[in-house]
Amino acid sequence: MSRQAYRGAVFHLLADPDDAGPEAVCHYDDGVLIVEDGIVVEAAPWSESTLSALGGVPVEHFPGKLIVPGFVDAHVHYPQLDVVAAPGGPLLEWLSRYVFPAEERYGHREVAQEAAHFFLDRLLQSGVTSALVFATAHKVSAEALFEEALARNMRILSGKVLMDTNAPPGISDTAETGYMESKALIREWHEKGRLGYAVSPRFALTSSPRQLELAGRLLAEHPGVLLHTHLSENLGEIAAVHRAFPDCPDYLAVYEKFGLVGNRSVFAHAVHLTEAEWGRFGKAGTAVAFCPSANLFLGSGLFDIAAAAKSGAAVALGSDVGAGTSLSPFAVMADAFKVCRMKHHPIDAFRLFYLAGLGAAKALRIDSYVGNFAPGKEADFVVLDAAELPLLARRLAGARKFSEQLFARAILGDERAVARTYVAGRRAYARKVAAPPV
Amino acid sequence: MSRQAYRGAVFHLLADPDDAGPEAVCHYDDGVLIVEDGIVVEAAPWSESTLSALGGVPVEHFPGKLIVPGFVDAHVHYPQLDVVAAPGGPLLEWLSRYVFPAEERYGHREVAQEAAHFFLDRLLQSGVTSALVFATAHKVSAEALFEEALARNMRILSGKVLMDTNAPPGISDTAETGYMESKALIREWHEKGRLGYAVSPRFALTSSPRQLELAGRLLAEHPGVLLHTHLSENLGEIAAVHRAFPDCPDYLAVYEKFGLVGNRSVFAHAVHLTEAEWGRFGKAGTAVAFCPSANLFLGSGLFDIAAAAKSGAAVALGSDVGAGTSLSPFAVMADAFKVCRMKHHPIDAFRLFYLAGLGAAKALRIDSYVGNFAPGKEADFVVLDAAELPLLARRLAGARKFSEQLFARAILGDERAVARTYVAGRRAYARKVAAPPV
Repeated sequence: MSRQAYRGAVFHLLADPDDAGPEAVCHYDDGVLIVEDGIVVEAAPWSESTLSALGGVPVEHFPGKLIVPGFVDAHVHYPQLDVVAAPGGPLLEWLSRYVFPAEERYGHREVAQEAAHFFLDRLLQSGVTSALVFATAHKVSAEALFEEALARNMRILSGKVLMDTNAPPGISDTAETGYMESKALIREWHEKGRLGYAVSPRFALTSSPRQLELAGRLLAEHPGVLLHTHLSENLGEIAAVHRAFPDCPDYLAVYEKFGLVGNRSVFAHAVHLTEAEWGRFGKAGTAVAFCPSANLFLGSGLFDIAAAAKSGAAVALGSDVGAGTSLSPFAVMADAFKVCRMKHHPIDAFRLFYLAGLGAAKALRIDSYVGNFAPGKEADFVVLDAAELPLLARRLAGARKFSEQLFARAILGDERAVARTYVAGRRAYARKVAAPPV
Repeated sequence: MSRQAYRGAVFHLLADPDDAGPEAVCHYDDGVLIVEDGIVVEAAPWSESTLSALGGVPVEHFPGKLIVPGFVDAHVHYPQLDVVAAPGGPLLEWLSRYVFPAEERYGHREVAQEAAHFFLDRLLQSGVTSALVFATAHKVSAEALFEEALARNMRILSGKVLMDTNAPPGISDTAETGYMESKALIREWHEKGRLGYAVSPRFALTSSPRQLELAGRLLAEHPGVLLHTHLSENLGEIAAVHRAFPDCPDYLAVYEKFGLVGNRSVFAHAVHLTEAEWGRFGKAGTAVAFCPSANLFLGSGLFDIAAAAKSGAAVALGSDVGAGTSLSPFAVMADAFKVCRMKHHPIDAFRLFYLAGLGAAKALRIDSYVGNFAPGKEADFVVLDAAELPLLARRLAGARKFSEQLFARAILGDERAVARTYVAGRRAYARKVAAPPV
């Protein structure tokens, strides 16, 4: 049994702040997070009695720093790190010009391993401890990611991509191989350590009806796995879906037809859903990954968070790298605020942190394990400061309310805001210390 | 006479890439920038003959780094550093709730001095060597900025704000004091060292007709100074301008009425100009500061770069901190790309660098001094790399074309991309070197 206490300012959310209001917010200016064998014992205010109650437990003190739960990225493509910030056209052109050629390389184990290693290091540097990740259609691309995530003991969800239509041969499978390989991967990796599997048809346009049907069968056969795909990102894409599935009244109906819309499904984007689609979406208990940076970068449109909230859908933030341009949850929160502001529905700091933390954990159905510091959860946490961000430091000093400080962290932060990242109680990342040049 | 050569990759623009096409682009994979007494001698490809021609000139070598002209910020408020990332409402609410109270403090010399010092240091850290800067209505706020800029030998343009209407007493002047103080400041600071003056009515809503008239008189009396103000940022603001100036057919007409629209004027925003306004705007040879981050953050709207280009107006990028959320020209370029993409008019890397460099220098009428490496210009330059940006480094290694690399720098960069900043040939900033934590 190994106990460790971390003293500093502590902030986490107990519930959705939109539902629970101020009751959702737990913040101690001087607090302590107590961890035992990688599990949260409690987060509490610091006091002398805490100290004595702890007895011989070692205390690491982070004066002036803020301890928060590890961030959760609800939608990201690790093989697209190689084409991030590619000056492509809108979605379909960008996919064929940049993404598909880049993904071809991921049939090579060493390419996938190197990228998975790099990707997970960048997540940890960004304070992201869990993510729902697209690989490529190559089985080995998912295996490499799972191996690297297992080695880091991270709670990572992924799966091989299913795509048997409208894609170059080098990144295609068939309905049958996609089904068989997914099954094998689920058997080997799902619930191994902290890993989880997501059945991952790329999107409606790159899977045959037969493949979508088999994706539905995979879901039905494996009650614990997720469904992860894209929905209604771009108007050109939506028009193409209508042409490809003339019997379906709308985009969501394509996925519904194959049993893919339920409370284990996570759809990225949903930028252009109709009111009818939102209604069914919410009723199904489905989750949406709102990817503001990617939606702006590809010019897809402005996500309607008010419609999503009204529908009752679980909403989470996704970086969507490589259409998104940063793995930092701060960059994503900043763009999320901007998109919501443009839609005349500005959101506050608690909502932003919820979407990038507990809310994302709920969307990925991993909130019984992570997302806040409830006793018994896995101790994934991040130590934040502003030592490397002078503008943020200035603003933090000037802002009177904690909510304003937190908002400034969301808007002005990036990887530099992360001093330490801990995974299941183990220090997995520590920021380098900058010194003046020689 | 002091000569110094800087070897590395070199990139600058000779003209507007939209007009001149590929001819505008000057790029050497292995080049050299030669500087003498703070002035550019030439930028050229590196070769053995260059070396021998240089004779005894010392050469500083930046292998793997890219030397570019210093960036130019065409619109920024230095007193708003204190309220950056404030969770306010749209423009007018945000101004009264956050900005005006913050600006009150700038009547104190020591407050203004400390902030000017901090601000200019941040500009240099961001690779920005010139800027058109709003101060506050206090004469001392402009003086403090000029003093600090003079000490750094930076090409900075600023002026005291004129605002005698709709503002708290602590940040108001009168038409007459505003006029007299501006005149005194022009006399003392305009063309002192590399400084320049900008007559700076905040915007139509905060100046009386008499004050706008006197602003026009200041312009007429001082042929070298600029006019710097805000225009058509937000729909609520525009409606209020219509109510305040019922005799003017549109917003631009208010400024035209007082002789403020000409080829020395720089208007921030212009998000909602009508076709008629754009027509007159372009014809007047006027410049616009496109402030994408601020426009997104305040939800003001999406700037129409196609309309601006069609009008013939000079377009430049502005960070517009504190409504903007970063002083980094990279952050501003990334948001500019996103806004243009959302308006279905994506722009390339050369255009982005033009808007943040030579184009901004043209907009501020300082392009005979800075903006590129034409012989005889002042040697403001920046040394860029990706040592502190692993995702950018990865993308640079993978991108085949220089234009794609440059695009990735624009989208993925921030202060960390800046290794060194030189002002008139003098090293003014060097990034700290990061070391693993002890």
